[in-house]
Amino acid sequence: MTSAVAITVDPAVELNGHTLKRKKTATHSTNDTLMERLRKHGNPALHVTPDHKIELLPTEIPTPSPQEALVHVRCTGICGSDMHLWHRGSIGPLVVDRACILGHEPSGVVLAVGSEVVNVQPGDRVAIEPGVPCRKCWLCEAGKYNLCEDVKFAGVCPFAGTIRRFIAHDARYLHKLPDSMTFAQGALVEPLSVVLHAIKQCGGSIGIGRPALICGAGPIGLCALAAARATGAWPLVITDVDQAKLDFARQIVPGVGTYLVDMAKTPAQGSEEIRSLYGCGPRELERAVPSKTEYNAPSTVLECTGIESSVVTAAYSCRRNGTVMVIGVGRSIMNNLPFMHLSLAEIGLRFINRYSDTWPAGINALAGGQVLNLDALVTHTFPLEQAVEAMNLCADPATPSIKVQIVDDVEIEI
Amino acid sequence: MTSAVAITVDPAVELNGHTLKRKKTATHSTNDTLMERLRKHGNPALHVTPDHKIELLPTEIPTPSPQEALVHVRCTGICGSDMHLWHRGSIGPLVVDRACILGHEPSGVVLAVGSEVVNVQPGDRVAIEPGVPCRKCWLCEAGKYNLCEDVKFAGVCPFAGTIRRFIAHDARYLHKLPDSMTFAQGALVEPLSVVLHAIKQCGGSIGIGRPALICGAGPIGLCALAAARATGAWPLVITDVDQAKLDFARQIVPGVGTYLVDMAKTPAQGSEEIRSLYGCGPRELERAVPSKTEYNAPSTVLECTGIESSVVTAAYSCRRNGTVMVIGVGRSIMNNLPFMHLSLAEIGLRFINRYSDTWPAGINALAGGQVLNLDALVTHTFPLEQAVEAMNLCADPATPSIKVQIVDDVEIEI
Amino acid sequence: MTSAVAITVDPAVELNGHTLKRKKTATHSTNDTLMERLRKHGNPALHVTPDHKIELLPTEIPTPSPQEALVHVRCTGICGSDMHLWHRGSIGPLVVDRACILGHEPSGVVLAVGSEVVNVQPGDRVAIEPGVPCRKCWLCEAGKYNLCEDVKFAGVCPFAGTIRRFIAHDARYLHKLPDSMTFAQGALVEPLSVVLHAIKQCGGSIGIGRPALICGAGPIGLCALAAARATGAWPLVITDVDQAKLDFARQIVPGVGTYLVDMAKTPAQGSEEIRSLYGCGPRELERAVPSKTEYNAPSTVLECTGIESSVVTAAYSCRRNGTVMVIGVGRSIMNNLPFMHLSLAEIGLRFINRYSDTWPAGINALAGGQVLNLDALVTHTFPLEQAVEAMNLCADPATPSIKVQIVDDVEIEI
Amino acid sequence: MTSAVAITVDPAVELNGHTLKRKKTATHSTNDTLMERLRKHGNPALHVTPDHKIELLPTEIPTPSPQEALVHVRCTGICGSDMHLWHRGSIGPLVVDRACILGHEPSGVVLAVGSEVVNVQPGDRVAIEPGVPCRKCWLCEAGKYNLCEDVKFAGVCPFAGTIRRFIAHDARYLHKLPDSMTFAQGALVEPLSVVLHAIKQCGGSIGIGRPALICGAGPIGLCALAAARATGAWPLVITDVDQAKLDFARQIVPGVGTYLVDMAKTPAQGSEEIRSLYGCGPRELERAVPSKTEYNAPSTVLECTGIESSVVTAAYSCRRNGTVMVIGVGRSIMNNLPFMHLSLAEIGLRFINRYSDTWPAGINALAGGQVLNLDALVTHTFPLEQAVEAMNLCADPATPSIKVQIVDDVEIEI
Repeated sequence: MTSAVAITVDPAVELNGHTLKRKKTATHSTNDTLMERLRKHGNPALHVTPDHKIELLPTEIPTPSPQEALVHVRCTGICGSDMHLWHRGSIGPLVVDRACILGHEPSGVVLAVGSEVVNVQPGDRVAIEPGVPCRKCWLCEAGKYNLCEDVKFAGVCPFAGTIRRFIAHDARYLHKLPDSMTFAQGALVEPLSVVLHAIKQCGGSIGIGRPALICGAGPIGLCALAAARATGAWPLVITDVDQAKLDFARQIVPGVGTYLVDMAKTPAQGSEEIRSLYGCGPRELERAVPSKTEYNAPSTVLECTGIESSVVTAAYSCRRNGTVMVIGVGRSIMNNLPFMHLSLAEIGLRFINRYSDTWPAGINALAGGQVLNLDALVTHTFPLEQAVEAMNLCADPATPSIKVQIVDDVEIEI
Repeated sequence: MTSAVAITVDPAVELNGHTLKRKKTATHSTNDTLMERLRKHGNPALHVTPDHKIELLPTEIPTPSPQEALVHVRCTGICGSDMHLWHRGSIGPLVVDRACILGHEPSGVVLAVGSEVVNVQPGDRVAIEPGVPCRKCWLCEAGKYNLCEDVKFAGVCPFAGTIRRFIAHDARYLHKLPDSMTFAQGALVEPLSVVLHAIKQCGGSIGIGRPALICGAGPIGLCALAAARATGAWPLVITDVDQAKLDFARQIVPGVGTYLVDMAKTPAQGSEEIRSLYGCGPRELERAVPSKTEYNAPSTVLECTGIESSVVTAAYSCRRNGTVMVIGVGRSIMNNLPFMHLSLAEIGLRFINRYSDTWPAGINALAGGQVLNLDALVTHTFPLEQAVEAMNLCADPATPSIKVQIVDDVEIEI
Repeated sequence: MTSAVAITVDPAVELNGHTLKRKKTATHSTNDTLMERLRKHGNPALHVTPDHKIELLPTEIPTPSPQEALVHVRCTGICGSDMHLWHRGSIGPLVVDRACILGHEPSGVVLAVGSEVVNVQPGDRVAIEPGVPCRKCWLCEAGKYNLCEDVKFAGVCPFAGTIRRFIAHDARYLHKLPDSMTFAQGALVEPLSVVLHAIKQCGGSIGIGRPALICGAGPIGLCALAAARATGAWPLVITDVDQAKLDFARQIVPGVGTYLVDMAKTPAQGSEEIRSLYGCGPRELERAVPSKTEYNAPSTVLECTGIESSVVTAAYSCRRNGTVMVIGVGRSIMNNLPFMHLSLAEIGLRFINRYSDTWPAGINALAGGQVLNLDALVTHTFPLEQAVEAMNLCADPATPSIKVQIVDDVEIEI
Repeated sequence: MTSAVAITVDPAVELNGHTLKRKKTATHSTNDTLMERLRKHGNPALHVTPDHKIELLPTEIPTPSPQEALVHVRCTGICGSDMHLWHRGSIGPLVVDRACILGHEPSGVVLAVGSEVVNVQPGDRVAIEPGVPCRKCWLCEAGKYNLCEDVKFAGVCPFAGTIRRFIAHDARYLHKLPDSMTFAQGALVEPLSVVLHAIKQCGGSIGIGRPALICGAGPIGLCALAAARATGAWPLVITDVDQAKLDFARQIVPGVGTYLVDMAKTPAQGSEEIRSLYGCGPRELERAVPSKTEYNAPSTVLECTGIESSVVTAAYSCRRNGTVMVIGVGRSIMNNLPFMHLSLAEIGLRFINRYSDTWPAGINALAGGQVLNLDALVTHTFPLEQAVEAMNLCADPATPSIKVQIVDDVEIEI
């Protein structure tokens, strides 16, 4: 008989009158009733296959290891990469070589914890960091666990994702949500984390009253816009090929400048128009009559598309001595990089891969909505049972969406 | 006959259809009528003397050099250092050794410009950077002009301050105000600059969703609180010995935690209570049962008092590997520094002296009030003619004030 | 019967013709003969007691856990902190509250490895990082494991040190020595690491052709001098109260400037004399006639004494906008800090606590002696059996020493 | 009558017994005898024309402005860019659109100084920084004068270069040479500066005991190798397509690893072979059996060729989270950038343009040869009269050269 993890609560540790968090111990023999209750609900999971099919299929309820917690996933956002894995079957080296469960933007409720877990307990509402790094390699040791080559990342083959009812996850990567945050907000910490990591890697170059440019007004671009705004960056401009997305951006951040990308123009031409939105004169004029308007150009560009022409436009738009931070992923090889322009202007081209140590800051920022409010990004919500419909909506250009979330409000007694 | 600077406007420079800012030329022979008009208004200036007297006295209207502009000062904020120069006659090495005009937080309107000035023209509304560095020493060359040992700083003997009607100032240090900003806001860029420089020197450690502590709720502390908030820092706590100031802080930044300093407690005791506001457990407990609550302690402390006990409290409150940024100035010598605590926790103690390259960012931040709104800091306003009364109010504990500004709304025809 | 760890070697892993390091497996049942051989040698260990006695006493040979290796300690350097623990019974919060084995600057030979060890194998010559951090706390996760509050540090109560024949140590913290390095050199990686960490934390401010100052010519100061020289810092000056140490420094780094500290002079006076060695004029003259000589002052000071007057001298000697990096440990509380001088000059006061990720760089630097040669620092060598004599020599002012090492050349068959 | 600058020496300034540098004053009326003496020597200058001719032609002796010094150029190194300007007529936006004097790696002796010059005096031996920035733009103000768009750079049309006998140059950009340095060494400070700026921009990532890779063994690559070695970087590998250059590199830095680039191999293949020199296993194996060898890969690559295939090889060779610093200049547009590799590995691509604030460090490093000795780079020396022959030798593949210098040992009485 498979049994769930039983929780036995130790007497609270006390020291000098202060009560410490209770240390929990667990046994693997007694808590059969919880597992029985969970089994009644089943564990439907959204699978993707190498031949580009998606389907909701029943799965086992996992048994957490001593370091893991069993979590009821209450919400998972759908990411562009989920669409890629479905339609193309791969993203760079990540390949759908077997049926795999999708989903890596989750939040939920802890149902049970393994015997060595101390940071969460049953009932805790949590945002879930989807990648579990090895904690052994030099990159993990150096605090760069986002670059760990041995990471187990939920929703990337062969690691099961979170678009299902119950998951077991390393408890270290569960982050408690304050009461003021919803599960929808908790699930937004993942895309926000991408942007927070990028901003952190910019090393203070994005900051209060300093101009910045965001390329691309998709979900990550909009998060980047909102986060840049929340760091005080100003003025801000965002670009996209879709006027509707730019209009949406203006609702998210009133006062942001918008630039509709015209693919018929060269990146150099586009960049002149973008720079004029910051009050920069044409480069030729700048050189003829030195003035201070180059100063006004964005010293940081957050490139959120990964598309070659956009990266090149970013390079031409950036202020001398500035940074183009490439957040978007794109093709393996990029051509047409304006090498000598970057060289003469000493513009650095930087990249990020996922995130490390961003959940606490993301939760602080979203809690209470005081620093940052991303609620408007969630345009559609589907119950878990309609996960396939959610994916279809994302794929349908006739129904524009920003962030689609899959939720599961089934009541589970702990 | 003394004559003012005459402005003759060249035809606009054009290139490829773009109109460039007009280049202005000036002669020193014709514009007598402006000077005559100005003389009717006189140039009353607030003087401080080595024997601690302040008086409004008539002064000459200065003639700008080719690099300078003549400016009608519309607003000057009074700074704590003005009070020091009045009552103590010195601040560190800066000594009132002769009668000197006070004031270094100014904004105004350009009336005329010298022959080599290209960045502003008559009629421009400007915020004024009070220090004019030498532009020759290695510190100026290295972009650290705030540390120039040959700076001419308005309001510090022997350099005349801005609490008067008309000043001549190097035009490079005039920064145009957008229409959306008031003169009062323009004059707030100076105290804001102190804080922006401090935040910049923290190198990105203050940022979105990261906890920070502000010590002291005077004008600089409140600016620091508002600016930290505008960079997304959260949670925030501010300390002071005066509950009224803490209450005021809560109006400026709703949700900020406040800590009333009790001088009867040791800094170590105070720091424990401050840390508990971030959810940190007592240090002793932390060590007994390792948990993650030390993580929640403020990684950056902006110390805005310069008082020894507050600096020591800041050192004890800071997170391991964090930074205590000392903004406040204090006594020449400090005792009781918790040396081994700083060493074992690898906490850096950093300092700033004024600011460099902060006006553009400050203006961007205050323009339109979108990023930052400091209006509430201005509690009192006096006309130039009542400058002495303004100073008296600042000195009177019976009439609490935050920022007192001296304004001059006399209409000057350009 | 207690048994040692047995090593069984798997067939080498191969992939595409490349041979990978063999994965080792171990069992805890068979290798009794190794243990028997080791027991013949015994495991004498240098103990210190709370009542300030030191004695060489027999100890058990430890059994390594699956992550540990059993190591024959071939060399351990004696550190000033060992002398403190002996004579004072404590260093800050570290207290000798029971009999404890001293020693934390070790190198040795791997004799056997636990079942999960992959990075070393029996016969490997290794430098040993003495601290084993928890690998769980946020500081470990952030790559700051030197600040881990749950570190098990060899030679600090209650963790046994390395002045004995056989130790078991977490294999991750064993770093292979190339054939070109001696055990004496391997044991020098620990004091070198302190300095490498300090230099790393200076963030590039110590570098080729840039002036630096080292305060204190003890073992750490001399390591700092040699390491600063190896990074290309120049000119260099080192200070001490002992002319003999300064003479020694000149042998280590020919051309270094030396300054004999006269305790009768104030730190401000001393700093003027130190600065003159860099070609800086007196501060008063500097201000009277601005010149470029302040530029020549040391932008980085490596303070290696922790003594108040030396730290204050460092503060006065440092170039404007420079960094005083405090490596030395001292009293809990420091007085007489020149607060306003640090503030006006924007000099940062930074601290370090031990090191992280320094062994690989230290070994690269010492290997072959090409980058750095510290051999001359080892002035005395004693066999393990004379460990007490070694300690006595360190304590005897009549026999000056720099680095005393305890070696064990007993031949152990693996 | 044209007259030279006359020097009258003021009595030395003294304060508290210290003698300050004498302040010099000059008049433009008396020192005719110096000019007469100079005219006897003539001022032959190496010109390049838009139709790709070079010729030594007589020129006027320039009269220094009040901020300038008249300098006898004793040595100028020939740079690859001089060859480009000659043979191609341009480098990026820099075009030979009229006859222009070449040369920008100079050293010399001060003959006379303008009335406002305080930092040098006649007789001073100096290294000469060839670019004179505007000192007015925001980049100059920010300490980034290397990016000034209004720089007057010697040897770049329309600014006359230094391959002539007498030049007038802004005295701020003259840097005194100590007696221990030769003019040949003084002229090497310019190419060294390129490398020092690159290393500085790496922000401490090149350092003691840390592996680095240098791509290209031309003059800049060899300077980079020597400078990286002087910062303690180790192990080091250098690449080139020419085995003779690699052999030369081994003489400059004994123990350096060398890699002969085979253009028939792909950059990815080449990078695997380069990485194996650091002890890194093949990437595929790394991933199959996680080990620590990726750690050994170079975290910094100094790319000194600007050639596309070399930049791409650099990108593949670099350690995860490392930096590729592009020093070499190349074609306007670069293709085949391994975009996703850079993204997944978070490798930053950085660029530099010339240098700022590097002469003092370069002189410190070369003085006495203690930190760095580049003498071996100078393979050929020609007198000024044979400047054309010097250029021809540089252009002749049959006579391999590294650095060719043009010297002028004519004795000039001051």
